[in-house]
Amino acid sequence: MNIHYLDNSATTQVCREAADAAYRMMRENYGNPSSLHKIGLNAETAVEEARQVIADSLGADKKNIYFTSGGTEANNTVLFGAAQALKRRGDRVIVSAIEHSSVYESAKRLAELGYDVQFAPVTEQGVVDIDALKALLTEKTILVSIMTVNNETGSIQPIERIAKLVHKNCPEALFHTDAVQAYGKMPVKPKKLGADLMTISAHKIHGAKGCGALYIRDGARILPLLYGGEQQKKLRPGTESAPLIAAFATAAAAVFPDLSHHTEHIKELNRYALDQLQTIDDISVNSPTDALPYIINISVAGIRSETMLHHLEENGVYVSSSSACAKGKRSYVLEAMGLPDDRIDSSLRISFSRYNTTEDIDALIEGLKSGIATLQKKQKPSP
Amino acid sequence: MNIHYLDNSATTQVCREAADAAYRMMRENYGNPSSLHKIGLNAETAVEEARQVIADSLGADKKNIYFTSGGTEANNTVLFGAAQALKRRGDRVIVSAIEHSSVYESAKRLAELGYDVQFAPVTEQGVVDIDALKALLTEKTILVSIMTVNNETGSIQPIERIAKLVHKNCPEALFHTDAVQAYGKMPVKPKKLGADLMTISAHKIHGAKGCGALYIRDGARILPLLYGGEQQKKLRPGTESAPLIAAFATAAAAVFPDLSHHTEHIKELNRYALDQLQTIDDISVNSPTDALPYIINISVAGIRSETMLHHLEENGVYVSSSSACAKGKRSYVLEAMGLPDDRIDSSLRISFSRYNTTEDIDALIEGLKSGIATLQKKQKPSP
Repeated sequence: MNIHYLDNSATTQVCREAADAAYRMMRENYGNPSSLHKIGLNAETAVEEARQVIADSLGADKKNIYFTSGGTEANNTVLFGAAQALKRRGDRVIVSAIEHSSVYESAKRLAELGYDVQFAPVTEQGVVDIDALKALLTEKTILVSIMTVNNETGSIQPIERIAKLVHKNCPEALFHTDAVQAYGKMPVKPKKLGADLMTISAHKIHGAKGCGALYIRDGARILPLLYGGEQQKKLRPGTESAPLIAAFATAAAAVFPDLSHHTEHIKELNRYALDQLQTIDDISVNSPTDALPYIINISVAGIRSETMLHHLEENGVYVSSSSACAKGKRSYVLEAMGLPDDRIDSSLRISFSRYNTTEDIDALIEGLKSGIATLQKKQKPSP
Repeated sequence: MNIHYLDNSATTQVCREAADAAYRMMRENYGNPSSLHKIGLNAETAVEEARQVIADSLGADKKNIYFTSGGTEANNTVLFGAAQALKRRGDRVIVSAIEHSSVYESAKRLAELGYDVQFAPVTEQGVVDIDALKALLTEKTILVSIMTVNNETGSIQPIERIAKLVHKNCPEALFHTDAVQAYGKMPVKPKKLGADLMTISAHKIHGAKGCGALYIRDGARILPLLYGGEQQKKLRPGTESAPLIAAFATAAAAVFPDLSHHTEHIKELNRYALDQLQTIDDISVNSPTDALPYIINISVAGIRSETMLHHLEENGVYVSSSSACAKGKRSYVLEAMGLPDDRIDSSLRISFSRYNTTEDIDALIEGLKSGIATLQKKQKPSP
């Protein structure tokens, strides 16, 4: 059976170039980037070249890029590092109600530690309510963290506008955006957006799991999460994962030069999918109309997410129920958008990568139709 | 020119089996271990099989193993996680004066945060002074962290004895050992040693940089360093680096069944090297006689570490000056052993792996001899 992998927002297959790059680093360029001899220097050179590639992809300078073990670590570094560095200036930390768990749970932990943590609400479209956010901005605010694109619905947040609002009202606060779901899918340039800090991750763009990066603007001081050696200006010590860093840069280099081309392809896939989804009576689309085209969140009336997910899987179609990191828990993102429980419990996330084709959509639509035909009966109580 | 890589305590070349395992995970078994469908489950299965392999290698149960991004993260998790979890019971944290920077600097950070941090001194042999350690153990002690094998000298610490001492005198304290340099080179079984917590790393045993693990005994409660998804019982959230985890287990599986065989080989290499090093007048051996045979620390009279390091490199021989993570800084480990400055500034670390042969030693000895013949003159002031 053909595989129709439509769960690319959970993770992607590592592209051949990136996997090859990692392999070469493991077998040939295996030195410790901190070693003083040539074998170490060769590895360091590869890491620094990769840092340049990632910096270029963000329109940033290489010195502002710090590699991490992934988005979760980068987001934690921001939340705890900024909170600690700025605690003398204030105690308010604001995140949106639809952040990824690595921001959301870190914020909850900060609340336990005594910080005044506020969750900015979102509209029915899953977009941060600007007036509500504005009302939360006090002079005690030290950090605002709003994701660029939501991982469950694809809703795009008005980051440039939010950044301006934050900087105007709280000139001392840092503004962070978790751009994990946006990076490699739309232009995200922290300087242009006005973000002091930005999180990106490799494994959502056909790099490998276990690698991400944090952009930190010059002068935006945060404390490290990890302490140890001299690596990465001591902001992120520990031997750099040279293989995964090289793979990350290779994956980025494979997507960025053709970003607009890929976007066109995905927009077509998205339109093709939506056209057919909208002809199926029992399906509602939860993603806003102006969402990132890489993600479509739907609900199938009367069929629980997991039930449909497994039915699709039997047909070779792989999607997810909300976020992979939540593993089966009810989506607080859809709750924050005010969706009724039955819509939430029957929601599915379809997420594309540039390797998907209309054949994958055809298989999805067919699977959804056969699922609706057979599963609704089973789940409905008999008359 | 042949490469004689004798810097295996800095990092190792990833063995072919391990690199192949990582490649397969990147290209074929690429799912997110948290995804609910089969592609996710396949990745989860690989991660859990790897966890079992690592657990077996430590004589531990799988449920006590947590994967991290490396030794630095695991050590930080212990220091900050234990300090936070136990702060109501006391504020004293004890580490040795010769810990790896990821323990040492974390301890210094804890001191800044108000903890009563004590550094246990070591003898001239680089072994923790048991009486001095005993004197530091108070009822306020919440954590003691002593490495199993020192990364610069190979000195083996009496972990079993120290663990007993800690548990007897401070029954509420946790005892942690950073076993990064010992793992895969001598048996390290946390239960047998009496360690509540143990750190290990992949890239010192021919796994890849960017992966380590933390053993946590049942009932030893520490707080997480990272907050986020549901992965690894929320003690270490974030998408698992399935490729590097599979490579780690493959590297472990390649070494453990033949551990005693490898040890014999390294003992012979060590003896072969020491026999020749001891015939060179200007060389002093800084490692104690009962050190782990994988590491020999020497000083070459009158020649600075970096000068000799680069001379050896020109001859295809790769060694290090102290720890790679310290990158050129003076060794606080050798200082703690009471070595005079000139011995410290001329120190070199030679470190083996099972792939080394007597030819590597011959090249080393030849390089040292030619270095002494040519470099001493240059560095000595003319009469």
